[in-house]
Amino acid sequence: MSKLLIVGTVAFDAIETPFGKTDKILGGAATYIGLSASQFNIDSSIVSVVGEDFPQEYLDLLKNRNIDVTGTEIVKGGKTFFWSGKYHNDLNSRDTLDTQLNVLADFNPVVPEDFKSPDIVMLGNLHPLVQLSVLEQIERPKLVVLDTMNFWMDNTWDDLMKVIAKVDALTINDEEARQLTNEYSLVKAARKIAEMGPKYVVIKKGEHGALLFHDEKIFFAPALPLEEVFDPTGAGDTFAGGFTGYLAHTGDISFENMKNAVIYGSNLASFCVEKFGTERMQDLSKDDVHERLEEFRALTQFQINLT
Amino acid sequence: MSKLLIVGTVAFDAIETPFGKTDKILGGAATYIGLSASQFNIDSSIVSVVGEDFPQEYLDLLKNRNIDVTGTEIVKGGKTFFWSGKYHNDLNSRDTLDTQLNVLADFNPVVPEDFKSPDIVMLGNLHPLVQLSVLEQIERPKLVVLDTMNFWMDNTWDDLMKVIAKVDALTINDEEARQLTNEYSLVKAARKIAEMGPKYVVIKKGEHGALLFHDEKIFFAPALPLEEVFDPTGAGDTFAGGFTGYLAHTGDISFENMKNAVIYGSNLASFCVEKFGTERMQDLSKDDVHERLEEFRALTQFQINLT
Repeated sequence: MSKLLIVGTVAFDAIETPFGKTDKILGGAATYIGLSASQFNIDSSIVSVVGEDFPQEYLDLLKNRNIDVTGTEIVKGGKTFFWSGKYHNDLNSRDTLDTQLNVLADFNPVVPEDFKSPDIVMLGNLHPLVQLSVLEQIERPKLVVLDTMNFWMDNTWDDLMKVIAKVDALTINDEEARQLTNEYSLVKAARKIAEMGPKYVVIKKGEHGALLFHDEKIFFAPALPLEEVFDPTGAGDTFAGGFTGYLAHTGDISFENMKNAVIYGSNLASFCVEKFGTERMQDLSKDDVHERLEEFRALTQFQINLT
Repeated sequence: MSKLLIVGTVAFDAIETPFGKTDKILGGAATYIGLSASQFNIDSSIVSVVGEDFPQEYLDLLKNRNIDVTGTEIVKGGKTFFWSGKYHNDLNSRDTLDTQLNVLADFNPVVPEDFKSPDIVMLGNLHPLVQLSVLEQIERPKLVVLDTMNFWMDNTWDDLMKVIAKVDALTINDEEARQLTNEYSLVKAARKIAEMGPKYVVIKKGEHGALLFHDEKIFFAPALPLEEVFDPTGAGDTFAGGFTGYLAHTGDISFENMKNAVIYGSNLASFCVEKFGTERMQDLSKDDVHERLEEFRALTQFQINLT
């Protein structure tokens, strides 16, 4: 089976949306990526760090989905990374209420022996030096995908440029793509990003879908129009998990197959937002995903005879 | 040949975008609808009104594209409707600088005899009572499509409800759909609009594409990602012209064929924004449109084998 190496946060989140409020629940980029990718028949491993306060049941939840967590360090006496946020009424923007780095402040990632030759690597949103450290510990995989955010552009620009230069694909949201390139047009932004290193660029537009760029080719995966978005937390990471999980599963990193991968990413993300936190991703079945794939087909496929 | 009856403004526009500024140029909803629909082999007619200041060459331009303008009244001594606007840097929003209703203030539409039994009617953005008056003069066509905007919701709500109740399809932008229904979710908004009358609802999202709703079915036509949007004026009307022109041309108003119609609408709108005003639509060839259709296919069509 293909090996997917995932690096990112495993964390506690406390979320408030117009529909309700949670206590500390399971969160973190790597958690969402891992749960999403576990829909495919692959071996995956999460390199991360948590504190002693992190419940064993959360680690078991990941293990039970065939996710290796031997690379997720448990720091004795340490506290797990915590993020708290409140979404505005339109659910398109949010305020961060609290961020406690805790054990993440001194995170020194260690890739397990079994995953030092992964097929695909998904570098979830983290300090660029942590992402670089992971790449230095492994043999060059078939594909390295990077996710990042504006915080690293604002605070660690040079380090970010170093890691961007080393990856094959970048997933980033539209506002961040504009900030990274100083281009408003996403077509121009993607071209500039490709010049920085990544030959494949995925620009995530939230409820407006995602664009995949490669050379002069473009593919678009819509977001499924939903009656209600309940909690957008983790949707971007779930997208990335679906994207890399599908590519690992199929072993085919051609542009044609990446189209399918972004459709799967969008498919899985459409479930993530239906419930709070990881709740919907935990009870998601293959049948659910296949059924929704048919909805994506109906939503986008057409047969036109030329006029 | 199928007959498409178009009602809407034929006007002067003065436009300012980050790329430049025009004097008074040809504009108006019916103009854009007509030019767009003229890409198809149909008979079309524009019911509208202009002043004596309206250049004969503009009317000839429409006539030369097989658009009947006998229903476009020229008011002796009158002045043509004028709109002036300035787009913001992102081209997603604009300020209206000037609106002079002129001959539009007393517009009393008269449908030419030849078009009193049209196959399809496109009611472009206008006072709802003018739109209603056109419907009263004709035999019930196969399909009536209505376009409107927030101005009529704010000022002529009851009249707007009357015309909405009489049409088969509504094209409207996302913010206006939300205002009309008081629903943020576009899925819920479309359902509420359907309860007002139109069995088909098209929600236009500008650079984010367009959604077609019917019963519980949804289809999505993306906007083509462009390097540069030069001038968005008329894009929504061009979309409506492509939508109704294609439906008139094919004579097939099934949901399956409406999918193709929204793709054609999006296709034609992608040209409209490439130059100022109607410039690009004037020199557009069938080959251009067919070539772009292939771009839409590449952008959206995929072949997934189930995992």
